[in-house]
Amino acid sequence: MADALKIGIAGLGTVGASLAKILVERRDMLTTTCGRPIEIVAVTARDRSRDRGVDLSGAAWFDTAAALAGTADIDVFVELVGGAGDPAHAAVKAALERGIHVVTANKALLAAHGVELARLAEKHGSLLNYEAAVAGGIPVIKALRESLTGNTISRVYGIMNGTCNYILTKMEKEGLTFGACLKEAQRLGYAEADPAFDIEGNDTAHKLSILTTLAFGTKIAADDIYLEGITNITIEDIRAAADLGYRIKLLGVAQKTDTGIEQRVHPTMVPLDSVIAQVDGVTNAVAIESDILGELLMVGPGAGGNATASAVLGDIADIAKSRPGAQTVPALGRPASALAPYRRAQIRKHHGGYFIRLSVEDRAGVFAGIAGHMAENHISLESIVQRSKHHTETGEPQTIILVTHATMEDAVRKAVKSIEGDGYLTGKPQVIRIERPKSA
Amino acid sequence: MADALKIGIAGLGTVGASLAKILVERRDMLTTTCGRPIEIVAVTARDRSRDRGVDLSGAAWFDTAAALAGTADIDVFVELVGGAGDPAHAAVKAALERGIHVVTANKALLAAHGVELARLAEKHGSLLNYEAAVAGGIPVIKALRESLTGNTISRVYGIMNGTCNYILTKMEKEGLTFGACLKEAQRLGYAEADPAFDIEGNDTAHKLSILTTLAFGTKIAADDIYLEGITNITIEDIRAAADLGYRIKLLGVAQKTDTGIEQRVHPTMVPLDSVIAQVDGVTNAVAIESDILGELLMVGPGAGGNATASAVLGDIADIAKSRPGAQTVPALGRPASALAPYRRAQIRKHHGGYFIRLSVEDRAGVFAGIAGHMAENHISLESIVQRSKHHTETGEPQTIILVTHATMEDAVRKAVKSIEGDGYLTGKPQVIRIERPKSA
Repeated sequence: MADALKIGIAGLGTVGASLAKILVERRDMLTTTCGRPIEIVAVTARDRSRDRGVDLSGAAWFDTAAALAGTADIDVFVELVGGAGDPAHAAVKAALERGIHVVTANKALLAAHGVELARLAEKHGSLLNYEAAVAGGIPVIKALRESLTGNTISRVYGIMNGTCNYILTKMEKEGLTFGACLKEAQRLGYAEADPAFDIEGNDTAHKLSILTTLAFGTKIAADDIYLEGITNITIEDIRAAADLGYRIKLLGVAQKTDTGIEQRVHPTMVPLDSVIAQVDGVTNAVAIESDILGELLMVGPGAGGNATASAVLGDIADIAKSRPGAQTVPALGRPASALAPYRRAQIRKHHGGYFIRLSVEDRAGVFAGIAGHMAENHISLESIVQRSKHHTETGEPQTIILVTHATMEDAVRKAVKSIEGDGYLTGKPQVIRIERPKSA
Repeated sequence: MADALKIGIAGLGTVGASLAKILVERRDMLTTTCGRPIEIVAVTARDRSRDRGVDLSGAAWFDTAAALAGTADIDVFVELVGGAGDPAHAAVKAALERGIHVVTANKALLAAHGVELARLAEKHGSLLNYEAAVAGGIPVIKALRESLTGNTISRVYGIMNGTCNYILTKMEKEGLTFGACLKEAQRLGYAEADPAFDIEGNDTAHKLSILTTLAFGTKIAADDIYLEGITNITIEDIRAAADLGYRIKLLGVAQKTDTGIEQRVHPTMVPLDSVIAQVDGVTNAVAIESDILGELLMVGPGAGGNATASAVLGDIADIAKSRPGAQTVPALGRPASALAPYRRAQIRKHHGGYFIRLSVEDRAGVFAGIAGHMAENHISLESIVQRSKHHTETGEPQTIILVTHATMEDAVRKAVKSIEGDGYLTGKPQVIRIERPKSA
C-alpha cells in the first residue's frame, strides 16, 4: 500500500467539521477506494476547544492558515477559511509555492485570484481543485474541466443560488410576497441576516465567472458581469409568467456571441415544461450546451455542510488516487498562459425573448400606442395579454403583458422608453429576459 | 511538451468515425488542453475504403482488433467494436495484459466481463475507462467513481434507454398506440429493426449492472436483474397515470435493502412534478442518492455518434492529462479484490407504491370484493378511481384504478391473484410500480 495522503485543513466551520468527521469515520472505506489512507495531520481553527464531534487530537494545531500552509508536513492543503483576501489568499499561495496540492471551496477567492493561483499551481506542479466552489455538490467543475474536453461550449447557465430559488419557489407555491419569503428563508437559515449578496446576484456572479473561464477559456472576469437581483420580482410577474407558460428563476448565464461573451445574472423566464423549471427550493442546477456532447443538465444540492464536504472529499480523493506529483490537469481547464482575454458582449446587444409587464391607464389609444412603439423598433410579439384588475369597472389601471419573439435588447429598451414617454404608465415597467434551453 | 499520446481505434463505425474526425480536426485545441498531442497511430475497421470524412492514411491499419491491441505501438486502445464476446473481449484483454490503457463504450462487454477486465487492468497498471458505456454523454461513471468517493449510496436509478423513452413520450403526447410509436421510432432510426433488446429492458439492464457495481461495491450481476419491458403499456395506463399525477418511464433501479440489492428494470410511475418526469424523448437521465451529497440528477443525450464520441474523448483526455502510468483509479471504483458478492433482494420483497388497473364487469359487489382483498392483505390505498367507458350505459366493463401506499410486492401479488380468482375481471390486470425521488 502507498503512503498515507497527509492533509491539512484550514477552517473547521460547518464544512470543515463535516469533512473531518467523514475522513475519520470512513477511514477504512476511503483507504480501500483510494488505495491509501487519508490522514488529517494538521488543522487550524479560530476556536480549539469547540466540540466538533470528531477527535482531532492527533493533528498538529496551527495558529493561522498561513502557518499551516507554509510549514506543515502535508501533501494537500484544504482551504475552508473563505473570503477573497487574506488569510485565504496568502495561505493558498504559500501552499502552491511549496508544491503542495490545494483543495478549496472558496468561490470568492477563485473569482478574484483564480488565474494567478492557476499559474502558481502549474509552475510548482501542484493541483488546484475546487469542485465545491460552484453549485456545491454538483460535479460541474469536473464535467467542464474533464468530461467535456474537446467540446466547444456555446452556453452555460444555471440556478446557482439556493436562497433565491427558495424565495422564488415559495412566492409561486404560496402566493406570498418577496419580503415574506425572504423572512422565512432567514428563519430557516437559507438566507443570511444581510441577504444582499445572495438576492442581488453577487454570489451567482462569482460562481458564473469560474464557469465562464472553464467553458470559454478566457481569463476570469468576475467584476464584468451584468447583474440584476430578484428584489423587484412580484407575485404578479410570477402569475403572469405561469399563465404564459413560464417560470421565473434567477439564472447566471454565460454565452458566446459574435461580439464577445455575455456574462449575466438576472431573473429569467424559463419554459414551464423545461427540466430546469422543475428545480425547486434550495436545489441548484447547471446546464452546459456544447457542440459534440449536446445538452447536459445537472441538478443537486448547491450548499450545506455535507454536500460541500462531499465535493471537497471528491477533490481530495482524486489526488489520493494518483501517485504523488503525477497528475497534470490544469486548474482552469487549460494552461493559464493559454487563457484568452475576456471580451465582454454588451447587454444592449443581447438577443432573446422578453417579457414586458406594463401598468397603464384605462383610456383609448393606449394599446395602439404600445403596439406602435413595438413596431417602430421592429419587435415582433409572441403574445399580448390585457387584464383589468376589476373586470367590471372602467377607469381602473390595466395590466398589459407582452412577450416578444427573439429581438435585440437595445430595441426593447428603446420601445419601453418611448412607451414611458407617452405618459400613460401608472407604474415602473417590468422587463424580464426569457431563456430557452437549446432543445425547447 | 510531453510526448504524444498514441492511440489505436478498433472499430470505425458511427462513434469511431466521429471520434477520429474530432481528434484530427481539434488536434491543436486538444494539445493545448491536455498538454500533449493525441495521435491516432493505428486503426482497424471492416471496410478500409469507406469515406469517413477524415484522413487516416497516416495510421497503421490492422486486420483485426486483436492484432491491433496485441501488437500496435500504442498507449491507449479504444475499443468500439461492440459485443460481449470476441473480438472485443479478446482484444481488450490483450491490450490490458500489455499494460496498455483501454477506453471502451461497450456496455455488453463490461456487463459480462467487467470484473475480470478490472482485475487485469489493476494487475498490469492500466486504466480501464468506459464513460460512454452507460447513458452516453452523461458523465455518470465519473460521478460515481470519482465525485462521490466516500459517500454511501442508497439508490441509483434512471432513464437509460432512449428508444423506450421516445416511445413513452410520444404515446403520451400524441395519444398513439405503442405499436405506432415503435414504428415511428424505427423510421427515425431511434429503434432497431429488431427492437426487443431495447423495449424488453435488456439494454437498460446491462447499463444498470455497471452502475450497481460502482454504487454498491458488489460484483457485476447483469444476469440477475428483474426485467419487465414496456410492450404492455397502453394509452389507458398513460392517461390514468397523468390523471393521478404520475408519468410512466422505463427505469433501471438499483437499491440497497435489508435483504440485499434490488436490481430491476420495469415501467415505473414517477410523480409528474418531479424533475425526472420532464425528461422527454431520447434523452437519458440518471439519479444518484447518497448519504453525504444527497440527491444528484444528471440529464443528457444517452446515445448517438457524437455524444458517445464525446464521452470516449473525455476518457482519452483523462489519460492524456496524466503522466504515463501515473493514475491508479480502480476501474470499478475500488480494487476488484474488494468487490463484495452480489446478493439479490427478491422482487416479492420490494417495498413501494403500486398502480393497479383492473377491467371489471359492471355488477354489484365487485367494488366491495376488490376492497376486501386489499384489506385482507393489509394494503392501504392512496386513491381509488372507478370509470365507465360509456357513462350512460350499464353492463359495460368498468375500469377501476387503485394506487396503494407503500406496501410489500408480495401482498399486492396475492391481492391481485385473489381478485382474479373471483372471476369478474374482463381483462388482464395491469400492475405498475411507483418510484419516488427521495425529495418527493
